[in-house]
Amino acid sequence: MGGSFALAMKKAGLVKRVVGYSKSPSTTQRALKMGVIDVEAPSALLAASGADLVLIAVPVAAIEATLKSIKHILTPETLVMDVGSTKRNVVDAARRVLKDQVGVFVAAHPIAGKELSGVEHADVTLYANKQVIITPIERTQTAQLTKATALWEALGCQVLKMSPEAHDSAYAAVSHLPHLIAFAMMNAITDQPNGREYLSLAGMGFRDFTRIAASDSKLWTDVLMANKQELLAQSRHFQKALQALERLMQAEQTDQLEHEIDRASLTRAQWKMTQRK
Amino acid sequence: MGGSFALAMKKAGLVKRVVGYSKSPSTTQRALKMGVIDVEAPSALLAASGADLVLIAVPVAAIEATLKSIKHILTPETLVMDVGSTKRNVVDAARRVLKDQVGVFVAAHPIAGKELSGVEHADVTLYANKQVIITPIERTQTAQLTKATALWEALGCQVLKMSPEAHDSAYAAVSHLPHLIAFAMMNAITDQPNGREYLSLAGMGFRDFTRIAASDSKLWTDVLMANKQELLAQSRHFQKALQALERLMQAEQTDQLEHEIDRASLTRAQWKMTQRK
Repeated sequence: MGGSFALAMKKAGLVKRVVGYSKSPSTTQRALKMGVIDVEAPSALLAASGADLVLIAVPVAAIEATLKSIKHILTPETLVMDVGSTKRNVVDAARRVLKDQVGVFVAAHPIAGKELSGVEHADVTLYANKQVIITPIERTQTAQLTKATALWEALGCQVLKMSPEAHDSAYAAVSHLPHLIAFAMMNAITDQPNGREYLSLAGMGFRDFTRIAASDSKLWTDVLMANKQELLAQSRHFQKALQALERLMQAEQTDQLEHEIDRASLTRAQWKMTQRK
Repeated sequence: MGGSFALAMKKAGLVKRVVGYSKSPSTTQRALKMGVIDVEAPSALLAASGADLVLIAVPVAAIEATLKSIKHILTPETLVMDVGSTKRNVVDAARRVLKDQVGVFVAAHPIAGKELSGVEHADVTLYANKQVIITPIERTQTAQLTKATALWEALGCQVLKMSPEAHDSAYAAVSHLPHLIAFAMMNAITDQPNGREYLSLAGMGFRDFTRIAASDSKLWTDVLMANKQELLAQSRHFQKALQALERLMQAEQTDQLEHEIDRASLTRAQWKMTQRK
């Protein structure tokens, strides 16, 4: 996410100099070699020092520690953003750590990404024609909010504003639960005696359905835990819907089953047409 | 499925004349116009009359009736195939209807398809580099089996033979259950007060995960019902795996959760590499 952002900012002519820091020296070295960053910093603090814009692209559970390590060099003009998949916990962390300075932080979630993490998969076009959700709070500075919006729009994004809570409910339903299901599906199959054989027979429907199951386990453990309550609530909705279909099958109520499937099918077909993704 | 088969057979030079029949006159008219068929027949019987090869591309619940309507003109040299997603019920229907002639029938399931049905989506490349499962029984004629295998291979398919039972277990796991889940997911979201808003926020992960939910409801009601027992058994495996992940979340056992997700992620990443689909 961070690498793609740096490449896109450079291409749009919005940055002069990108300073990078990663816990893993091999990441910053690869980023330098790929031209994703111009300079390698020995710490998050030194990377953020003197920056107009700080983008924190780390797993959501590491955002609080990262904010702590840079808070002493932030000025009222700095814009700080994250790109995490959950927003309530991130905004809470920003409030706790930044206190009076929290106005410089704009929580952001670009609806873009790949199942492959790491700077080696940085892609200059990742954010083009995507949505970005930003979740400002009352204390967010207007200047920072305007700057953040303009910046994502310059990268080709459609910017939507909502509360951290509304964000987390929506993405529990349309992102976190699909990931949880895809992970469970892979384990359910491989734990069966013939599971490996079953997998060798799977086709393109399975390929697309389970693509997100290849996502990074550390990153997604953090996301699922950070949005646990909303996710478990969505999972209950889903299991109810699944069991309703199962009951129709068991009762051989095929007309009613077809009606329920038709409802799902129409919604999905219409969604595709309106989204153009 | 049938339209794509006709186009591919023509392109491979394997057929001289394709005679088409559909219950819906608009389908055969469109097929004629698109060059998918050469001649339109007024009934299944007349379409199959004098044919070397009969391909039955109808929902699995309609295969038995179709076999009944053509059985009187079959010769010992005819090859009859279906392309249905379940095989035990199809083979049973063929046994019931064709009796002593059942040897001319080769049950087939090409692992190819789209969420969009209908001759207007016929695609000459649909079967290229795909797997086809054929499920012969003891009474299947060697001549028909050899011909069926050669024919799918000529269309660029890899042909696998297995029992109807083994087929139905495997595809309950890797195809029918993913469809059932995708349908349930769409209904679970739209039945919530903010469901439509949630859908408008969904990204590419959701797009791929739910693609199969747009599948034809009539066709899939038939498939799910035809493989009900195996499907319900797979759904139990899946719900157990899902609930195991939920319990780890609730107990805040994040290391164990990460381990389980990592297992899923690695399996899926490796699958992608070996399949090249």
